[in-house]
Amino acid sequence: MAVLCRPAVAVPDHVITNEETLELARRLHGDHPQLELALRLIEHTGVRKRHLIQPIDVVLEHPGLAARSTVYEAESKARVPTVVRQALEHAQLEPQQIDLIIYVSCTGFMMPSLTAWLINSMDFRPQTRQMPIAQLGCAAGGAAVNRAHDFCTAYPEANVLIVACEFCSLCYQPTDLGVGSLLSNGLFGDGIAAAVVRGEGGTGIRLERNGSYLIPNTEEWISYAIRPTGFHFQLDKRVPGTMEPLSPALQEVAEQHQWNAGKLDFYIIHAGGPRILDDLCRFLDVPPEAFRFSRATLTEYGNIASAVVLDALGRLFDEQSALDGHRGMLAGFGPGITAEISLGTWVAPD
Amino acid sequence: MAVLCRPAVAVPDHVITNEETLELARRLHGDHPQLELALRLIEHTGVRKRHLIQPIDVVLEHPGLAARSTVYEAESKARVPTVVRQALEHAQLEPQQIDLIIYVSCTGFMMPSLTAWLINSMDFRPQTRQMPIAQLGCAAGGAAVNRAHDFCTAYPEANVLIVACEFCSLCYQPTDLGVGSLLSNGLFGDGIAAAVVRGEGGTGIRLERNGSYLIPNTEEWISYAIRPTGFHFQLDKRVPGTMEPLSPALQEVAEQHQWNAGKLDFYIIHAGGPRILDDLCRFLDVPPEAFRFSRATLTEYGNIASAVVLDALGRLFDEQSALDGHRGMLAGFGPGITAEISLGTWVAPD
Repeated sequence: MAVLCRPAVAVPDHVITNEETLELARRLHGDHPQLELALRLIEHTGVRKRHLIQPIDVVLEHPGLAARSTVYEAESKARVPTVVRQALEHAQLEPQQIDLIIYVSCTGFMMPSLTAWLINSMDFRPQTRQMPIAQLGCAAGGAAVNRAHDFCTAYPEANVLIVACEFCSLCYQPTDLGVGSLLSNGLFGDGIAAAVVRGEGGTGIRLERNGSYLIPNTEEWISYAIRPTGFHFQLDKRVPGTMEPLSPALQEVAEQHQWNAGKLDFYIIHAGGPRILDDLCRFLDVPPEAFRFSRATLTEYGNIASAVVLDALGRLFDEQSALDGHRGMLAGFGPGITAEISLGTWVAPD
Repeated sequence: MAVLCRPAVAVPDHVITNEETLELARRLHGDHPQLELALRLIEHTGVRKRHLIQPIDVVLEHPGLAARSTVYEAESKARVPTVVRQALEHAQLEPQQIDLIIYVSCTGFMMPSLTAWLINSMDFRPQTRQMPIAQLGCAAGGAAVNRAHDFCTAYPEANVLIVACEFCSLCYQPTDLGVGSLLSNGLFGDGIAAAVVRGEGGTGIRLERNGSYLIPNTEEWISYAIRPTGFHFQLDKRVPGTMEPLSPALQEVAEQHQWNAGKLDFYIIHAGGPRILDDLCRFLDVPPEAFRFSRATLTEYGNIASAVVLDALGRLFDEQSALDGHRGMLAGFGPGITAEISLGTWVAPD
């Protein structure tokens, strides 16, 4: 019985408010023919502030791909261990008790991934398996939960550490001037999250079923162009409308479990943007407050990519409203267009 | 019972012999202070020829990271489907029967990874799970087999498709002039491999146990530097000596299974280079011919990264010498320094 325990989350100190973002967009793109549209989109993200690993002036200056990669490595090494330690404490486990580390991050690339450094520097066993995933984007938070669930199903005594480290500000590309890019510049934030899936014991969500769904022929809707300046995020304007084809897939996974996706007790949904949440609410026929954890993440931190679902999950724990036997869904969405869906029941041993 | 079925392998048409490699090194690096050392190392790789996706003249000209990424995408889309189809035929399965695609490739980066395109263009179900791994390097072939094994252990009726697509020639960096780089330029080749792990049925290796091992504090020994010119492969001169610390880890996994790593019927070992194979032979105390499949891969194709173990496995099938009940080991090695180890028994249903 794989139990997804309480996550740990950290966001960096540098804060940019939505007002500052709008002001910045006006200043940088005063002559942009679609500035008003971009401003309107940013205003409607529902983001109040975002946290960045560097001051905004530094973020805006692209120092080159090599320098950015160096920043990614230094910042991840500086920030991840604290979050990992806290996640382990929440799960009441020591590093030596972890069998697999799933490290997801789509905003920086290292080879080897941070897993090797984590094992060496945090006293994990050399036998710890490593699963670094860079190419599932925002869906990787859900994918990490699902692959951890699979692993604990295969090895019921195993424990899996999930780490999501996203420095979206390191993908800022000053030369990308499409409306999608301007919107993204106002939507994404930096954040780190970690959580443990315990094979035995633990308080949290007992993972019971997972599924994946790719909307056919949408693989170009969210993508990276790989250039000498690094990853260039490309967002198709059809992406906000993807909840219509995805909600039946969520419903189908629920039905396989004899559940109704619209009648669950809690929802941990990737906060890709406001319309994602609004539409999914509507298509699943759930009240808006059902997505309050995801909305809070979006409001407080912006879209922190694969870390969103873990942060929203943390807010479920914080609220202390879940009761033994409550049923819920966790869903990550990202490039593909891919949904990673998970169903589970709240368990709180006496 | 997860059975690793007969792989399919393809190498591209452009061939460079070791003599041509040596001649090229002499021509390009005539004034290099360590040319003689580099030539000696290349001479001793045991590589007779390598296959490249482009003529050597084109490989030598770095067209920039964006152009290389375009080549990676075009060539992988052009070459992977045939290999996948053949692997499915070997396993006697249709795309619709695959539950998970594990796509490993460390020589190009796409977001989304090729998994999304494969699902769309090859009639896989939209529910197919995707596990793209870019950051385990040459160890990813072994990791893919092991994660497929885990998945089939969790879901005994599931089938997993593994794809390893490595275009090492797209990581050639003309400005990297260290001896390690010169050696790598003469060692790595291009190749694509795929194989299916069937949860039920199938002829091949019944996967029984897997393990991973990271040699402590060696995470910098094999790495990429990320620069505007792309991935720069950095190889520490201590890497060829890593079989001494790794062989006890292989032995330990075997002992957990009440097997002796030195007394198995077949070995599928990552052919990182000649000393890797020579040393491991010695430390495991097995005769040189035990590693004949890996040596043949190295001789015929060079080090084709994560695809090596699948190609060597293909040669085991080709030889038709394995008998029902024969016991063997598969091991991939790569950055970390990480070993991914698998134990299995040959099964050939009547």
